[in-house]
Amino acid sequence: MNESHSHFSDLSLLVHPRSIALIGASERPDSIGGRTFENLTAWSDFRGELYLVNPGYAEIHGRRCVPSIRRIEQAPDLAILAVRADAVLETLRECGEHGVKFAIVFTSGFGETGEAGRAIEAHMREIAASTGMRIYGPNCPGLNNMNARLGLCFSPAWRIDQRSGPIGVATQGGGLGRAFIQAMDRGVGIGLWCSGGNEVDLEVSDFIYYMAEAPDIKVIVTTLEGVRNGPRFMAAALHAARLGKPIVALKVGKSAYGAKAAQSHTAAIAGVAEINSAVFRELGIIEVDDIDEMIDVASLLSRAEPTGREQVAVYSFSGGTAALASDMIGLAGLTLTRFAPQTLQKLRDTLPGYAAIDNPVDVTAEVLVNAEVSHAALKATASDPNTDIVLVPIPVEYGRTTTLLGASLVDVQREVSTPIVPVWMSDRTGEGHRTIIEGGLMPMRAVGNAVLAVKRFIEYGRWRTRFDSAWVPLGAIASHAANMGLSEARTKALLAKIGIPVPNGCVARTADEAAQAWRDVANGRGVMKIASASITHKTDMGGVRLGIASEREAAEAFGDIHANGLRVCAASDIEGVLIEPMLPAPFVEVVVGIHQDPVFGHVCTFGLGGVGIELFGDVSRRLLPLTAQSARQMIEETRCHALLKGYRGQCAYDVDALVAVMVKLSDFVVRHADSVGELEINPLAVRPQGQGVVALDAILCHHGGEPAASQLPGGPFR
Amino acid sequence: MNESHSHFSDLSLLVHPRSIALIGASERPDSIGGRTFENLTAWSDFRGELYLVNPGYAEIHGRRCVPSIRRIEQAPDLAILAVRADAVLETLRECGEHGVKFAIVFTSGFGETGEAGRAIEAHMREIAASTGMRIYGPNCPGLNNMNARLGLCFSPAWRIDQRSGPIGVATQGGGLGRAFIQAMDRGVGIGLWCSGGNEVDLEVSDFIYYMAEAPDIKVIVTTLEGVRNGPRFMAAALHAARLGKPIVALKVGKSAYGAKAAQSHTAAIAGVAEINSAVFRELGIIEVDDIDEMIDVASLLSRAEPTGREQVAVYSFSGGTAALASDMIGLAGLTLTRFAPQTLQKLRDTLPGYAAIDNPVDVTAEVLVNAEVSHAALKATASDPNTDIVLVPIPVEYGRTTTLLGASLVDVQREVSTPIVPVWMSDRTGEGHRTIIEGGLMPMRAVGNAVLAVKRFIEYGRWRTRFDSAWVPLGAIASHAANMGLSEARTKALLAKIGIPVPNGCVARTADEAAQAWRDVANGRGVMKIASASITHKTDMGGVRLGIASEREAAEAFGDIHANGLRVCAASDIEGVLIEPMLPAPFVEVVVGIHQDPVFGHVCTFGLGGVGIELFGDVSRRLLPLTAQSARQMIEETRCHALLKGYRGQCAYDVDALVAVMVKLSDFVVRHADSVGELEINPLAVRPQGQGVVALDAILCHHGGEPAASQLPGGPFR
Repeated sequence: MNESHSHFSDLSLLVHPRSIALIGASERPDSIGGRTFENLTAWSDFRGELYLVNPGYAEIHGRRCVPSIRRIEQAPDLAILAVRADAVLETLRECGEHGVKFAIVFTSGFGETGEAGRAIEAHMREIAASTGMRIYGPNCPGLNNMNARLGLCFSPAWRIDQRSGPIGVATQGGGLGRAFIQAMDRGVGIGLWCSGGNEVDLEVSDFIYYMAEAPDIKVIVTTLEGVRNGPRFMAAALHAARLGKPIVALKVGKSAYGAKAAQSHTAAIAGVAEINSAVFRELGIIEVDDIDEMIDVASLLSRAEPTGREQVAVYSFSGGTAALASDMIGLAGLTLTRFAPQTLQKLRDTLPGYAAIDNPVDVTAEVLVNAEVSHAALKATASDPNTDIVLVPIPVEYGRTTTLLGASLVDVQREVSTPIVPVWMSDRTGEGHRTIIEGGLMPMRAVGNAVLAVKRFIEYGRWRTRFDSAWVPLGAIASHAANMGLSEARTKALLAKIGIPVPNGCVARTADEAAQAWRDVANGRGVMKIASASITHKTDMGGVRLGIASEREAAEAFGDIHANGLRVCAASDIEGVLIEPMLPAPFVEVVVGIHQDPVFGHVCTFGLGGVGIELFGDVSRRLLPLTAQSARQMIEETRCHALLKGYRGQCAYDVDALVAVMVKLSDFVVRHADSVGELEINPLAVRPQGQGVVALDAILCHHGGEPAASQLPGGPFR
Repeated sequence: MNESHSHFSDLSLLVHPRSIALIGASERPDSIGGRTFENLTAWSDFRGELYLVNPGYAEIHGRRCVPSIRRIEQAPDLAILAVRADAVLETLRECGEHGVKFAIVFTSGFGETGEAGRAIEAHMREIAASTGMRIYGPNCPGLNNMNARLGLCFSPAWRIDQRSGPIGVATQGGGLGRAFIQAMDRGVGIGLWCSGGNEVDLEVSDFIYYMAEAPDIKVIVTTLEGVRNGPRFMAAALHAARLGKPIVALKVGKSAYGAKAAQSHTAAIAGVAEINSAVFRELGIIEVDDIDEMIDVASLLSRAEPTGREQVAVYSFSGGTAALASDMIGLAGLTLTRFAPQTLQKLRDTLPGYAAIDNPVDVTAEVLVNAEVSHAALKATASDPNTDIVLVPIPVEYGRTTTLLGASLVDVQREVSTPIVPVWMSDRTGEGHRTIIEGGLMPMRAVGNAVLAVKRFIEYGRWRTRFDSAWVPLGAIASHAANMGLSEARTKALLAKIGIPVPNGCVARTADEAAQAWRDVANGRGVMKIASASITHKTDMGGVRLGIASEREAAEAFGDIHANGLRVCAASDIEGVLIEPMLPAPFVEVVVGIHQDPVFGHVCTFGLGGVGIELFGDVSRRLLPLTAQSARQMIEETRCHALLKGYRGQCAYDVDALVAVMVKLSDFVVRHADSVGELEINPLAVRPQGQGVVALDAILCHHGGEPAASQLPGGPFR
């Protein structure tokens, strides 16, 4: 993946252009060109050269206007195109050929309208490729650089949406981006918003990469309808991870309805939601489900860096609200601080006897009207040595009481570094709410939202402590699906070759060979299974027999199985019947599978065989390559881990051997990434500790051409 | 439970008193008595007789004041006590003896402060019992009757919180109650708020029962920290269910932190969260997790009655937001309407080509500024014959655009009955937001919140179609835990007696008897288990042996098992060793257990044996008595139902026999409700369809005295 990693251009001159040409500049205040002119001149702090281009004007509001970009001697860093759709392609070509570095195209009416539009977009890409000019858009709201107070955009909202700050926003659609931006009214500061519309050239990944390096951005948020290029996206996310910048992502298209709507909106393919979420988790991307959740998580991350070990104190003036918050903290698996003795003493000295001082702190509404007591109690809570976050749920607007509370939150926050997180639960806002926002404390809107945000914050901190910054995902994307399969017998032979234990089996081609094979390998009780690359559900078609206890039984079973096989495929597709010894109990059956996701490349899936995965969806996933550590984490993430560890007095199973097999499988697929599309062991029997694992069934699918199957030995087969 | 059902007094004269005595009335505006006086006289429409009582005044603000309640000739319906804690008991006694019907006690300093306070509360209960006067409080905010504009309360917030409506609120703590009340600022109308503080007499159940009958209340919401009296609570909830009024409940204390905090706040015991939630579900109580969720669900229910078959349309001016909403609808398992052809035609005729007309509808922001088009498109969407709810997510405040949208929502809602549900996602409010609220549309605050509310709404509709209004839960509460157990053998004998199949086993007392028993019952392969009422985890202590294949093995196993038994209990506690035939595969092991919850009485639990319940928590629960229908629903609610139905080509199992056993078990426990504390079959083997079920292991725990064990036959035991 290192190669695509280097494909990110420096966007500094897009975000901070030294000179700008506004093509389609206009005097008409309601036109796109007129509104952009106003944003650039009246509502921005732009000190560079602004050129106006429009063949219809000689000057605009007293400024010189030229008919074409070619008339500007020194090509500007950035051209903004506010021109009609039919003029876009020619204008872009002129800009590119003239040496413009970046072009922003507001104009819509291209890919989103159908085939003809997509053809024009292909021409835009050609222009970008041939001239080196990078294109942002078309069909986009432009770029908002709040930290530099530079509005490369036409929306009249720009003049309002200017609360700068450390959050960078990279979106596909404009609507959800602006929904996030308006969190400014809650005090959330946003430094930069990039929204590349149809993304013919620059895309979300480019903006994430840029924001990862931008010194004024601490937290990156992104909304996605589909990841267009998985390896580039992963490279950008890893770049951010290595530079310590969290990414908060809202990915639309997890359900069939959402995927369809997203595709009709931005023509993005949503991808498989479970894989997408697993990849996000692995890359440390914090996935959220809604815009308000995104605001809460990002605002918290903009205030503090998590360690993953945070403990929470609750401070309220309502006992029921304090109980509700504590309850949610418990349900979320978070930890309420156990206050240090000096904290309890301070609270006891400060508050009356009927207040609750042990976390949660309930000072009661009567106490709150005494500003001095309120300040002292909150400060004691926030200064507790074990407290990392103070949650302050405020159930109601209570006039003077909540105004005093708001002021004390802001005052105490100036004196302590522990983040104080207010939750303004009421639909009634007022002076207290305003005080909190103006004090920079960005209130959340519901206890559940706040607890979820704190949970995500802490989980991200935990991920950081585990993150191996040297790790690079394989990212091998196939241009077509793997379409050739190996039979169980041949797959097992391959597994044996790479050091993964399989039963000592052999393939019989006749009833006599079956009887002989039973004697040779079955060890008293045998298993017989049809051997054919073209049959995948062997049990369903009568291709499996268990507990074969004699030569005669083996010979008979051969006949039955072979006959059943002929009912579903040609004789030439049947290699024979595989005979193996039955594995004695106890063992736990798990599944280890690797498949090639079309967006992100090879992904390993682990879970309990049978009901575990299929009924309960109890799986964990990782991108390849696996390490012993990541394989072990995969196992530990599932609920069936309890079973493997030795559940309720039963024996512990050989997790070390399981880990080793997962890594071997990963290593093999990494070596043959171009050909192996899928490799699954299902079930893999995990025997008691020290006794290893055995692959009871397995399948490999590969691409045509040079398959991994060329590695196959002729060895154990007759 | 019918008896406790009748214990609800008529609260009409508490909620609508014809005459009130304010005891502790005061001229001082900041005192409790003074504030209550102001609420009653300046901010209420009370037309009845108001008596003022205070020995310190002859008159207050020109009204006559008497020194004692005794001086009021005709006892008033209601006395409000705004007196010091040390005067409360005597005042209450005077009121009760004088014939007052209801007393509201604001005063705090009783049960919530400790033992001494609880002793005084016991005296209050005595007064209520001996005089018949019902007590509301102490330590409570009073009663707010918005629909009659009558503030029986001291809070200065009363004058603001007067948006009347069809929602009734019954809370334990005051803070969360008022948090809900302030949803009035979102346009939510609330008719009545009762909050009984320490609940020495009247409690949440009484208010729910009253609201169920009150003609001005359509929806009941309640916040609880603990259910004090399960049968009364269930009776009140059932009363509401039978009268068609939904209850929305927020129950604090689901986690250990929450339970501890709730107990320290209201001294309520939280109970077991899973049981509590199961009982709520069964009674049709809509359990929510947070106040904002409660507001959304209640406001939706106040607008429409669900059928359970609702389909949803999404209408937005942002493609990304429409996709997000559709995605969440899909993830929630809800159905997006497939528009009728005439709807699509109308939308096609109305909207430009680049708008999306197939649900979700994305009209785009440009279209929205044309009021006529916007109105027509929304009306077509809301008039679609298959659409039951229109969700309108509004991602941003867009000045004129969103004001027009708000107005068109309100206008169209006047013309169609399909509820239009706006979601105001932005932190920026404004004219559009105000328009929506004033038009009565109660905007929700996030797409996720709205989808969750719609889901709860529809689920409640489904519950209604299933609800059997004749059903009455058993509600047998034990005063102490069941402490006597029967051995497996004796429990199985009991099961056999009531018609539940058990293996044909017998108990051996010596090795010789074991060999003989093996010959008699084992049928080639036997199971041997220690028979002792005092051993519950037989496997862990070496008390179980499987696959016994000969008399000799049986005799040896007897020795081993018996010796292991002697290590954990006395010889006199060992009945012997149970010998049974091994059940041949295939079968599915499930668990059917009944236990006596201390709050709600006997509850049945069903789930997959082993990993299903313990690793994956895949269980369903019902109050006793079960019917064939409710037992079948229990099975269908679990994910393991897929296994029983015949999973991936495997055989289907005998669900009919399973249902029959569950009902038999329920019938037995109902007959012996006073003595049976717990009866669990674990595992119950469910064999292929037509082959029935077999109880492979079982245990019964009962109370001392007359246990169900008296039903035991001597029969199959030697």
